[in-house]
Amino acid sequence: MTKINIGLIGLGTVGTGVVKVLKDNQDICIKKIAVKNINKKRNIDNLDTNLLTSDPYEIVENPEIDVVVEVIGGTEPAFDLLKRAIKNKKHIVTANKELLAKNGEELFNLANENNVVILYEAAIAGGIPIIMPIKTTLAGNKISKIAAILNGTTNYILTKMEESNVSYADVLEEAQKLGYAEADPTGDVEGFDSAYKIATLATIALNQKVDINKIHTEGITKISADDMKFADELGYKIKLIALAEITKENKVDVRVHPMLVPDSNILSTINDVTNAVLVEGYPVGRVLFAGPGAGEMPTASSVVGDIIAIQRNIDEKDPLPMMKCNHKIKASQLDILHTENKYYISITASNIPGVIGTIGEICGRHHINLASVLQKGVCKENSAQIVVITETCKESDIQNAITELKNNNTIVRINNLIRVME
Amino acid sequence: MTKINIGLIGLGTVGTGVVKVLKDNQDICIKKIAVKNINKKRNIDNLDTNLLTSDPYEIVENPEIDVVVEVIGGTEPAFDLLKRAIKNKKHIVTANKELLAKNGEELFNLANENNVVILYEAAIAGGIPIIMPIKTTLAGNKISKIAAILNGTTNYILTKMEESNVSYADVLEEAQKLGYAEADPTGDVEGFDSAYKIATLATIALNQKVDINKIHTEGITKISADDMKFADELGYKIKLIALAEITKENKVDVRVHPMLVPDSNILSTINDVTNAVLVEGYPVGRVLFAGPGAGEMPTASSVVGDIIAIQRNIDEKDPLPMMKCNHKIKASQLDILHTENKYYISITASNIPGVIGTIGEICGRHHINLASVLQKGVCKENSAQIVVITETCKESDIQNAITELKNNNTIVRINNLIRVME
Repeated sequence: MTKINIGLIGLGTVGTGVVKVLKDNQDICIKKIAVKNINKKRNIDNLDTNLLTSDPYEIVENPEIDVVVEVIGGTEPAFDLLKRAIKNKKHIVTANKELLAKNGEELFNLANENNVVILYEAAIAGGIPIIMPIKTTLAGNKISKIAAILNGTTNYILTKMEESNVSYADVLEEAQKLGYAEADPTGDVEGFDSAYKIATLATIALNQKVDINKIHTEGITKISADDMKFADELGYKIKLIALAEITKENKVDVRVHPMLVPDSNILSTINDVTNAVLVEGYPVGRVLFAGPGAGEMPTASSVVGDIIAIQRNIDEKDPLPMMKCNHKIKASQLDILHTENKYYISITASNIPGVIGTIGEICGRHHINLASVLQKGVCKENSAQIVVITETCKESDIQNAITELKNNNTIVRINNLIRVME
Repeated sequence: MTKINIGLIGLGTVGTGVVKVLKDNQDICIKKIAVKNINKKRNIDNLDTNLLTSDPYEIVENPEIDVVVEVIGGTEPAFDLLKRAIKNKKHIVTANKELLAKNGEELFNLANENNVVILYEAAIAGGIPIIMPIKTTLAGNKISKIAAILNGTTNYILTKMEESNVSYADVLEEAQKLGYAEADPTGDVEGFDSAYKIATLATIALNQKVDINKIHTEGITKISADDMKFADELGYKIKLIALAEITKENKVDVRVHPMLVPDSNILSTINDVTNAVLVEGYPVGRVLFAGPGAGEMPTASSVVGDIIAIQRNIDEKDPLPMMKCNHKIKASQLDILHTENKYYISITASNIPGVIGTIGEICGRHHINLASVLQKGVCKENSAQIVVITETCKESDIQNAITELKNNNTIVRINNLIRVME
């Protein structure tokens, strides 16, 4: 195979993994590694410190480098660096989901103009092969839906909340101690990380550009130990789900929010930091890809897989044509208010006779049928805990019903509203 | 994209699916279809009967055909047909697991000599992308283990036995009525179908030729409703598992047999006709691929994915180099007698005091420690049902212990011996 030279931008978790995996590789040579701090102690045996530079532009301008591997994350300076690298005819391997979601269109167009490719298997679901299978084995399919667990931190938190019936805050603290959650966990727990990933994954799978700014995104911070318990009793697990679906009207419905997933759905069994992507298409039906969604070595597996793919095609006039994206078709994205869902509503109500009737009456007036109602005994304030699962109804109707319920005298408060997977 | 012409050999379940999927494809043209019976009524709208021929050699000798798609199954005439096609410089897409397992070496060598490729995604796990991900995204990995459910018929039967606690014979009859099992189910229920598939999958994943004749193969016909029930009580599901593993001594351990799979292992949740492949490697860790393992449309998805892969590479001097196998390294395959496993033993014993002691004593003498013992009450013959799970021990030791148990006066019979997944 053609020997190739790579330049690595970033030597954090993923970068360290890449160096370890390529240590004994004779055909892929790491020419240069850009780091923030040259003197920092690294967890790599026999690292040749001559490879290190604090100037990443040394890599993107280096004529000896064939492939730039970017693993610093964030939009700047990554965006500028990759544009320079592409203009210098270098192929790109990146794990940067935020950059792809926000600036993918410009990057992919620039890559097409310069006849280089951008591969990013590591950016979505870490070690799980998902982009390449969609672009190759499933290339004959029309993909209609993706439902995925794309964030390990939140899945870990939800799993622990469910297993131990403890609060979100307690588990977050533990996850931070264990290194599964960052000191500032906002990007994970508010769903932004999942949104970046589903934006790019949906763009690839549905073959039209999904705008990150139009993705309705909710995190897991409002999920309570009670929600977990009630969901469990009703035969569900709560997961942070990234969805992308073509509607009957050919709109594109992309969103990230917690969902009650039925125990019979395999996504309900995906626990801890594991990620999973359920792909639905014609003719294949439903296929599941699951595995480690983050971490030094799994992510390095995907980065190195991409480097090898480029290496195999580097002599071609048109390298990896199927991996080139264009963003010409802009998805017509459905607003969350126009979606239809089943819902879980957790309500604290006055413990007076007829309160369930009141809830049913208000919902009914907003065209919402109730599939099941659970009364969960009397709380200290002489109020009752009531859990409702609705039939499929309009998001706008449920929002109106919730407003009316909140204003009703017999309702103390709405504790939570969570969408339910069919 | 280059337009290509394909010749289809076989118009059964899979062939029909391929014709349906390619119906509106402008770039892939079906030139000819070889069938057994030209006059048979087909479940395809507007099938051009001029495409049909009863002579498959018309396809492999046709200079206009670029890719031969073989979906008749079995070794002959498929083997001879594909050899002729390869010598005529045609690329091959096949769903024929038996042919690949038995004659893969000769076929792949011939393909290498003629600079054509053989793709066979559909032969292993139907619609699930598994060969291509192993050869591309996971190309940087050293794969050490595969544990898989590769046969839909047996998984359906085991799932129904578990759900309804009915006998193997009853479920088989129902499965035959529903078309999930063939009139002669031997190939599925005795594990041969799984063995063909793991032979080829292991050859690819472990990068050495696995000999189908050295794969220890057991089916599911001896699994009883009681085994299902006891396994469930102990926290396991019984599945027909195809295993391939590199041992510490660098031997290759490939086998097919039922196993008790712990409820915590995701393979235990794979139900009905779904297939699943769990791949373990470095650096990726564990990745799961699951989906429809058979059926008209899922299998057609994989066939068409392979045709598209060839189409994208048909103008290359060296098409799809990474997909070419060689069988030069012959795996040193471990005999089942030299493996080590945990075991489930179901024993009917005389209902006299000390019988569990006797079982423990005999096992102990053969270096077998018991992890748990369940006494399941007294049967009609005044005998007791005893279920034992052992710690990890040698297969040769367990076989010797079983022989001794069978000869012991207090043991009425050994009902079953099933290996247990860690």
